[in-house]
Amino acid sequence: MNILVINAGSSSLKYQTYDMTDKPVVTAKGVCERIGMDGSVLTHKVGADKYVTETPMPDHTAAINAVFAALTSDKGGVLKSMADIDAVGHRVLHGADKFSESVIVTDEVEAVIEECIPLGPLHNPANLAGIRACKAIMPGVPQVAVFDTAFHQTMPDYAFTYALPYEYYEKYKLRRYGFHGSSHRYVSQRAAEILGRENDPDFKLITCHLGNGSSFAAIKGGKCIDTSMGLTPLEGIEMGTRSGSIDPAILEFIMSREKIDVSEMTNILNKKSGVLGVSGVSSDFRDLDEAADSGNLRARLALNIFDYEGRKLIAGYAAALGGVDAIVFTAGIGENSPQIREHMTDGLEFIGISVDPAKNNIRGKEADVSIDGGKVRVLVIPTDEELVLASDTKRLAQ
Amino acid sequence: MNILVINAGSSSLKYQTYDMTDKPVVTAKGVCERIGMDGSVLTHKVGADKYVTETPMPDHTAAINAVFAALTSDKGGVLKSMADIDAVGHRVLHGADKFSESVIVTDEVEAVIEECIPLGPLHNPANLAGIRACKAIMPGVPQVAVFDTAFHQTMPDYAFTYALPYEYYEKYKLRRYGFHGSSHRYVSQRAAEILGRENDPDFKLITCHLGNGSSFAAIKGGKCIDTSMGLTPLEGIEMGTRSGSIDPAILEFIMSREKIDVSEMTNILNKKSGVLGVSGVSSDFRDLDEAADSGNLRARLALNIFDYEGRKLIAGYAAALGGVDAIVFTAGIGENSPQIREHMTDGLEFIGISVDPAKNNIRGKEADVSIDGGKVRVLVIPTDEELVLASDTKRLAQ
Repeated sequence: MNILVINAGSSSLKYQTYDMTDKPVVTAKGVCERIGMDGSVLTHKVGADKYVTETPMPDHTAAINAVFAALTSDKGGVLKSMADIDAVGHRVLHGADKFSESVIVTDEVEAVIEECIPLGPLHNPANLAGIRACKAIMPGVPQVAVFDTAFHQTMPDYAFTYALPYEYYEKYKLRRYGFHGSSHRYVSQRAAEILGRENDPDFKLITCHLGNGSSFAAIKGGKCIDTSMGLTPLEGIEMGTRSGSIDPAILEFIMSREKIDVSEMTNILNKKSGVLGVSGVSSDFRDLDEAADSGNLRARLALNIFDYEGRKLIAGYAAALGGVDAIVFTAGIGENSPQIREHMTDGLEFIGISVDPAKNNIRGKEADVSIDGGKVRVLVIPTDEELVLASDTKRLAQ
Repeated sequence: MNILVINAGSSSLKYQTYDMTDKPVVTAKGVCERIGMDGSVLTHKVGADKYVTETPMPDHTAAINAVFAALTSDKGGVLKSMADIDAVGHRVLHGADKFSESVIVTDEVEAVIEECIPLGPLHNPANLAGIRACKAIMPGVPQVAVFDTAFHQTMPDYAFTYALPYEYYEKYKLRRYGFHGSSHRYVSQRAAEILGRENDPDFKLITCHLGNGSSFAAIKGGKCIDTSMGLTPLEGIEMGTRSGSIDPAILEFIMSREKIDVSEMTNILNKKSGVLGVSGVSSDFRDLDEAADSGNLRARLALNIFDYEGRKLIAGYAAALGGVDAIVFTAGIGENSPQIREHMTDGLEFIGISVDPAKNNIRGKEADVSIDGGKVRVLVIPTDEELVLASDTKRLAQ
């Protein structure tokens, strides 16, 4: 069984093919960049081989066509024809409160994804374009939508409701949604497997997805009860270029002094803030480590803020759960930065969280890095959102 | 020794006189309302007696004059003449990073309070007007400024720096300041006395000032290391009418839909949000309790959010402190609501916090309400910001 998974952004489109007949095997992957611009390019990878094709991609349909060409090409193709694809899984950013799990895309589902565009104005249109392009090119093949928000739909109302006039919730569905749902779900399931706590309703887990965007989730018995991103992916901890949570009065304070409008302000909070804004150096944590080690105090401060906010979030989620059995670090930083894992958990010994420096000295692989006999297990689990898409797609298509 | 303390708002002015010769004794107190408006009125109280005077108060100088008349009146006066006042203490909202403790008001201090007006645009001008009125009427009498922000000045940079472009901090002093400083300081000192932990650098305390405005502070060895209010008193937990922290992207989301500007938006976040906004019932927690008990689900939700956010903040500050020895509840709600104290600490047993329902059934007096043998002491301590003003004023004037 061949599954294609697609993650369409506004000007890019990532894809991956799986042979899901037995264990999931990635057969090819790649990315289309600069869709709708000059100089669009497709990079296709099969094993260690890489094929770069410059070809016009005026829209997502053209990009999908280019992907199909690459997948069936003499050079680097892995399929005889697109008829070999049994189903397609699409990552969709925002499902609002309509979808708490993945679904086969029907006309009704498509309409709801369209309804959710105001909540995901940059991503949902691209996701829809990807879905529609596939439907047009391969009619009859099941298309599955996997929502970034779905996993968080189990949050109780007191965790998702903002203390705002209630009419905004009624009129605009303005509430906390949370993102990175497939990642939190994947690593939480892996953690339960590793620790033998599957189907245990009392398993209390905190997942820390630390990447260019970062979010935390509190998960009880496999169900999300809180997460740090909100209506949008801006809320929560300091990120690469995003401010995370700040005093909401700061917007007026800056806007009136800098003479900018709210759209420019929000853009600054999304793209020029975070560790980049504080350090003035980079949004990349590896650059910050280097700068901080060379004595750059603002780079050190940016890292300290990240560690400190994360530590407070972890303890806050332990409170939400009424205790904690395990925490998971995942995504680019969570998987690859022993320093961040050590510093973020520093001072959490009082709730039984202690990282063993020797065990923690690993990157990009599954490991238990807590001290021997530590009350709370600290796990590193590389995330695999594509596998979540492929697995959901296989299950629903069958 | 007679001390007058003054808390001047934009259109009101509260005052209190103390005989500080021996133990502090409140001799009179009162409030001027509707300063600068029609129908201004002074309410003066001595013991159980109340004197209401309607008199024009076009400005704060007139209000101070009216206070002096009341304090020396045949009816309800407690002083022969204003020459009996030895010093005056003024509550000042914002001292930015210039004042980490109370000071005698010199011309330089006055200039700095004026410089801080952009950070406290509603309060600092009123505070200054009160200071200037007193200086004009009683030259030579020491005037002392006690800042709401001073106690929080010991926060480390990673706790007070927002993840924003650093230039805003450099240009505008945009950072976390925190408020309710005199209250957090007072109850933290009382807690140390009660528990015999004065001058103990390892004493780890969390103070919860829960009133119409609410803020939390993490205090180590008597020094504040974090607090939940920020650049302004809007940040942190849900309050009576304030939203507390929300996704900063929400402002643009609402403004574009409601067609309002940022100043109206910030006003909504300050005055029409919080438990009032969620419940649609009231900003008063007593009304909410009643409504929730009568089955009003949104009133219940507003209370649940408050309890839940508080619980997460307490655990987060325990992480900031690396553990916690005691927590204090104070201010209107903290002192008087057994329900909030019980619900907010519910689920914190894993860090040793447990409230004893029987001991907790008290209002408005000092008490240890934790279970016998509980690892973390849970204290109720009525706050007394005026006493902080009077004590600082006495100390500095001597």
